[in-house]
Amino acid sequence: MASEETLIVDCDTGIDDALALLYLLGDPGVRIGAVTTVFGNTDPETAALNTLRVLELVGRSDIPVAIGASHGWRGTRHLAPDVHGADGLGGTNLPAPEAAPSTEPAAELIVRMARQDPGAVHLLAVGPLTNLAAALQLEPELPRLVKHVTIMGGALRHPGNVTPAAEANISNDPEAARIVLRAGWPVTLVPLDATMTEAITEQQRRQLAEFGTPVTTFTAAILDQYLDFYARHAFGERKAACHDPLAAAIAVGDVEPLLAPVVPVDVETGDGPARGTTVADLRGQYRGFPADEGANVRVVLRTDGTFGARLVDRLCGREAVARGAA
Amino acid sequence: MASEETLIVDCDTGIDDALALLYLLGDPGVRIGAVTTVFGNTDPETAALNTLRVLELVGRSDIPVAIGASHGWRGTRHLAPDVHGADGLGGTNLPAPEAAPSTEPAAELIVRMARQDPGAVHLLAVGPLTNLAAALQLEPELPRLVKHVTIMGGALRHPGNVTPAAEANISNDPEAARIVLRAGWPVTLVPLDATMTEAITEQQRRQLAEFGTPVTTFTAAILDQYLDFYARHAFGERKAACHDPLAAAIAVGDVEPLLAPVVPVDVETGDGPARGTTVADLRGQYRGFPADEGANVRVVLRTDGTFGARLVDRLCGREAVARGAA
Repeated sequence: MASEETLIVDCDTGIDDALALLYLLGDPGVRIGAVTTVFGNTDPETAALNTLRVLELVGRSDIPVAIGASHGWRGTRHLAPDVHGADGLGGTNLPAPEAAPSTEPAAELIVRMARQDPGAVHLLAVGPLTNLAAALQLEPELPRLVKHVTIMGGALRHPGNVTPAAEANISNDPEAARIVLRAGWPVTLVPLDATMTEAITEQQRRQLAEFGTPVTTFTAAILDQYLDFYARHAFGERKAACHDPLAAAIAVGDVEPLLAPVVPVDVETGDGPARGTTVADLRGQYRGFPADEGANVRVVLRTDGTFGARLVDRLCGREAVARGAA
Repeated sequence: MASEETLIVDCDTGIDDALALLYLLGDPGVRIGAVTTVFGNTDPETAALNTLRVLELVGRSDIPVAIGASHGWRGTRHLAPDVHGADGLGGTNLPAPEAAPSTEPAAELIVRMARQDPGAVHLLAVGPLTNLAAALQLEPELPRLVKHVTIMGGALRHPGNVTPAAEANISNDPEAARIVLRAGWPVTLVPLDATMTEAITEQQRRQLAEFGTPVTTFTAAILDQYLDFYARHAFGERKAACHDPLAAAIAVGDVEPLLAPVVPVDVETGDGPARGTTVADLRGQYRGFPADEGANVRVVLRTDGTFGARLVDRLCGREAVARGAA
């Protein structure tokens, strides 16, 4: 990642959000300016406490954590204790963190930081897009103040996960997603098409447990329930999708997508069976996706399937060691 | 095909509709009880005249042709002269047929034939589903009178063709499609996922032209504009999708799909960007699509990619020759 770039991670921590944060925090070259939280996997207050727990685990309580939206644009929400546990971290019920969340609301923090250093902020959004939509309402110039937006969300040529057509982050607030995807800023969308092909396995979870550092012991613990859920509802075996950490790795340039055309993307906000669907125009797929001047969303359709191993290496600190030795 | 089965082909003839009819008419074991026409590729009157032309070409003017709906459920329609020519048959402007269409409306014909021989009628619908929805309104018992319904339509893990998400037949009348797909009868849906992988090429078109029978000369002529359209708008080379003939071949059991789970299917009828989308629940794809008792639609996701050659053989009468010699 370019050293002048500052990440704001907007998340609903959440098991894979925690993995994404730990992935990023494992690289000293990545600058995280703040974490903002939103409802989704859990409520935003719990997500903030979970984020603080993760930051304390790696001695980074200096990073501010701001709480954002507790419901979607229409006042609805669908939390996911079945996936992430009642505590949002796989039922590990860690003690309360020592630090406290910021009193600044998430959307205001995003706008303030974007104004402070125009062109430096990269928004990495791995939950419902409510905070980003709220920030766009507060500051209509935000698309010109922000460098890039990377979003984990959507399902294009892949089934949804909360409905047959819709992915959880988009489904939880389709109105906000529509505002964010159509705001005209440069967006990279990392949908289920990519994240469902990048798995972390039970064998890798055991490697993490055996490695025995605070970070790997913690990640092995939170992955236990997550793998259960994915075995039952998705893969039929104990492995889980690396949704949020994959988006994080793409945001900072660690993973180069194999197929990622820039195409028009819209969101269905009606009340029919396609509510919350990301409608991307992939009709150019037989012609190598010819350039579309009106498009601003790069959709990641394929990565190389090796990210699970890279994530484990990062959590074990092996990448940093290798770099330090070089 | 079981000899006791009678096909009613509901179509909007149309280039690939003509190919589907000629494919079926090339097998003396297939019994076509009637052809009904609907708006879509062209208007239903033109579709009926085109159907009569095709039937006369093979000496089968005995098959009745009935005209159906000229617009969708909401009074709208989108014809496709850019794909099929102003005459619906690639601008070949053939002379008028000698026979005339039936005076019986299409939906009434469908209901009458289904009542006459309960359990014998197989509906093969390769246009918008307006006539089938109208028949269901006329006879609510129709799902129990009809043996099977095979539909060319929809796009599941594949982009749409008239919008980013919607395929032409479903898009032209989503309300009718929703009625038909949810009527509880056994349906086989043949979407773009399969039909776009079964192409007929310029080389095959030339083979047909050189073969020199009335049927192959006709099909080579109507394919000319069709291949132009597909080269420009889909494949970037002169080859075209075998939409309707593939559905016909699947209906009569000539093509066995490689992947065709039975899953719940709904249609988005709202006015957003996903209008006309077929929403199939493919979330079981990682677990071999476990049986779903509430589902009644078999969705053809994959065939073997060799249908273009089989279609050419059939149009050249080679399959019939081989059978006769056996």
